[in-house]
Amino acid sequence: MLPIEDCYGRVLAADIASPEDLPAFPRSTVDGYAVRAEDTFGAKETSPTYIALRYEVLMGEAPRFDLPNCVAAKIPTGGMLPLGADAVVMLEYVQQVSADMIEVLRPAAPGDNVIRQGEDVRKDTQVLRAGRMLRAQDIGALAGIGMTSIEVFKQPVVSFISTGDEIVSAGSPVHLGQVRDINSFTLAGLVNSNGGILVKRGIFRDDYGIIREAIEYALENSDMVLISGGTSAGAKDMTAAIINDIGGPGVLFHGVAAKPGKPMIGGVSHGKPIFGLPGHPAATVVSFDLFVKPVIRKLSGRAVETEFAGTVKATMAKSIASASGREDHIRVYLEYNEGTISAFPVLGKSGLITTLVRAHGIVVIQNNKLGLDAGEEVDVRLF
Amino acid sequence: MLPIEDCYGRVLAADIASPEDLPAFPRSTVDGYAVRAEDTFGAKETSPTYIALRYEVLMGEAPRFDLPNCVAAKIPTGGMLPLGADAVVMLEYVQQVSADMIEVLRPAAPGDNVIRQGEDVRKDTQVLRAGRMLRAQDIGALAGIGMTSIEVFKQPVVSFISTGDEIVSAGSPVHLGQVRDINSFTLAGLVNSNGGILVKRGIFRDDYGIIREAIEYALENSDMVLISGGTSAGAKDMTAAIINDIGGPGVLFHGVAAKPGKPMIGGVSHGKPIFGLPGHPAATVVSFDLFVKPVIRKLSGRAVETEFAGTVKATMAKSIASASGREDHIRVYLEYNEGTISAFPVLGKSGLITTLVRAHGIVVIQNNKLGLDAGEEVDVRLF
Repeated sequence: MLPIEDCYGRVLAADIASPEDLPAFPRSTVDGYAVRAEDTFGAKETSPTYIALRYEVLMGEAPRFDLPNCVAAKIPTGGMLPLGADAVVMLEYVQQVSADMIEVLRPAAPGDNVIRQGEDVRKDTQVLRAGRMLRAQDIGALAGIGMTSIEVFKQPVVSFISTGDEIVSAGSPVHLGQVRDINSFTLAGLVNSNGGILVKRGIFRDDYGIIREAIEYALENSDMVLISGGTSAGAKDMTAAIINDIGGPGVLFHGVAAKPGKPMIGGVSHGKPIFGLPGHPAATVVSFDLFVKPVIRKLSGRAVETEFAGTVKATMAKSIASASGREDHIRVYLEYNEGTISAFPVLGKSGLITTLVRAHGIVVIQNNKLGLDAGEEVDVRLF
Repeated sequence: MLPIEDCYGRVLAADIASPEDLPAFPRSTVDGYAVRAEDTFGAKETSPTYIALRYEVLMGEAPRFDLPNCVAAKIPTGGMLPLGADAVVMLEYVQQVSADMIEVLRPAAPGDNVIRQGEDVRKDTQVLRAGRMLRAQDIGALAGIGMTSIEVFKQPVVSFISTGDEIVSAGSPVHLGQVRDINSFTLAGLVNSNGGILVKRGIFRDDYGIIREAIEYALENSDMVLISGGTSAGAKDMTAAIINDIGGPGVLFHGVAAKPGKPMIGGVSHGKPIFGLPGHPAATVVSFDLFVKPVIRKLSGRAVETEFAGTVKATMAKSIASASGREDHIRVYLEYNEGTISAFPVLGKSGLITTLVRAHGIVVIQNNKLGLDAGEEVDVRLF
C-alpha cells in the first residue's frame, strides 16, 4: 500500500472499482441557465421563450431549492443542477431582460450541457485493472474517486554481477590493459526505467569459486540476476558452467543467432531468472532489450500489453548488408526532413560506446534477409 | 555537479570532451592469436602458414613483451595487443599443432579484429553536448571515460495553484456540489516526467486577493506558475485580470482555437512563464502537452531536438467530424491487429477522467479539416 503520490510508473496490484458515482451529482459543462428542457421547446431567435429567473447555483454548493416549471437558475460551469432541472442553456443563447426574467433564444434537449451523475464512472464499476503501469492521468483518476492510497506490486530487485579481470570501477585509475565498468551504469538506467531496481553487487575476478559465491548470494537476495563480462570464450563457458552447477535447472540457452549479442546466456536457477550478458556495451543494450526487459516487466506484475510507444517508421538512407541465418540489430540515427524520417546506420564494432551515444534506436534485419536497401521502409525501435 | 548515478534523465549543462583515448590501448575483439598481419599473407586451408607460438596475453594486463616477426601470442577478447602485433586471427582459423606452433588457415589484414587505441573516442574530442537529456547509455559512456561526476542543469521548479470554490483535496470527504482535486496529481506526473519539479501550493477560493497573493508568492519562489480551475467564465476572467494586474507584461494570449483546451491563458510575469489551464482533466492534459511541456523543457536546459519517440501511425477505425476553425484533439485508444494499428476515438466530454484512462494518445484534426474518415492514416501522439 502506497500513497498515490508515490505510484507514478508503479504497477497496480489489484483492480480498482469506484467507491462512488463520478460525478456524484449532475453538473453543468457550461456557464448558463439551468432549466426544465420542456420549458424551452419551440424557442427561436425570432420568438424567444420567456422564463422567470429566480435562483442562482453557487460553485461548490448543493442548491437549496428545487426548480419549479418555467423557472431558470443561473449556473456556472461545474455547478450542480438543482432538482427539477434537466438541461442547461448556454449564456450565449439567452438574453436577460430584467432582474427576474430571461429570454431563451434556442431550445435545449434534456441532458444538454449536463454531465449526469455517474456518467464518468458508476459506483462499483472497474476504473483500472491490476497490471496497469500507472501513468499521470491514471493517478489523476484515482484522486478523482478518492483513492489516495493503493496496492502496487513490489519492484523486482535485480542483482548485477560484473566479471572480468580487466574491469575496474569507473572511479578508479586505469592501467594499460584495463577498462572501466560501463555496463553497470547502462543497466541501472535500463532496469530502473522498466520497473526494477538494480543492485550492483560488485566487480569480480574470473574465478569459478568467487563468481559462484557471488551468484549464489545474489540469487538468495534478489528476484533476478544479471552477469556481465567474461567477454572471452573461456570466461563465458565458466559463467555457463556455474549456472549449470547451481542448477534448478540451470542454463536454458547459450548463444543466440543475433548480432550483436551472440554470446548471450539465459537460464533459471531455483525459480529465479539469470542472464549472462555479453560484455560489449552495445551488445548489452540489445540483449537487454530482447531478453531481459520482458522478464523484468513480467516480474514487476505488469500485464502484457501491445506497446505502441517506442517504434517509429523511417526510410533507410543507405543500404546495409547482413549475413543470413542471424538477426542483425543495426544501430541507427535519425534525421527528420520535410515529413520523412531517414535512418542512417551507425557503423562500428559493438565494443564502441559512442555508437550507442550517437544512435536513436535499432533496426532489426530478420535472419532470412540479406540486408536492407536504401529507400526501404523500416521500423526503428527507439532507445 | 552530481555523481553520474543521479543523472539519469537529467540535462547536461556543459559539453563533455574525453580526457583520454578510449580504448586507451589496442584491444582484440575476438578470442584468437595476435600476429603481425604480414606473417599471415598467403595463408590458405590447403597450405597453412606456420607461426611460432611463444606468448599469451593475460586479461587486464599490459603484455610484458614485444611481438617479433613470425611469432604469435594467444589473446582473449578484450586483451591488449602487444607492441608489434597489428591484427588478430580468430581461434576458428587456427590449428595449434604443438605447444609452440600454430597453423594459420586464413590471412589477416592489418587491423583485423582489433579496436585501435582511440578508435571509440579520441582524447579531447566531444562525447556529449550540453543540453542532452542523459539516457542510460549516455551515463554508461561517461563512466567509460571516467567522468563520474558531471555538471547538470537545475530542474525547474513549477508551482501549481488550484482554484475553484468546488475543489476539495483528494483525501477529503466531498459534499454535494464539490469535486476532488484531480489536476494536481495528473500535472505532478506530467511535469516531473518532463524534467521539472511540481510544487503544489494548495487549493484556493475564487477570490481576487487570495489568488493574487498565491500567484505572487509562487512567482517569487519558483521558475514557472500553473493555475488550474476557475472553470466558469467569471473565474477565468479573474485569473487573466490578476496576471495582467501583476504585469511584466502579463497575459500574452487568452483562449486558443483548440478543443479541448479552449480557455487556456498564457503569459509572462517578471520573466517567468505563467499559464492558466482549463479545469477539465482532459483539457488539462492536452493543454499541458501543447503549451506547457515545451516551456518546461526549455527551462530545463534541454536542447531543442526533433522528437522521434511518442508518435505512432495508425488507421482511423471510425469517421469523426470536426468543426472548422479550431484544432480538435481527439483521444483515441489503439488496437494492434496483424501488423496494422487501428485508432478508435474515445468519445466523451472533456470533463470525464475515464476518457483519459482509456486512451493511448491523441489525434489532432487540423483547423482546416472537417473531420477524419474511417480508413484514413493518422499520427497518434502517445501519452
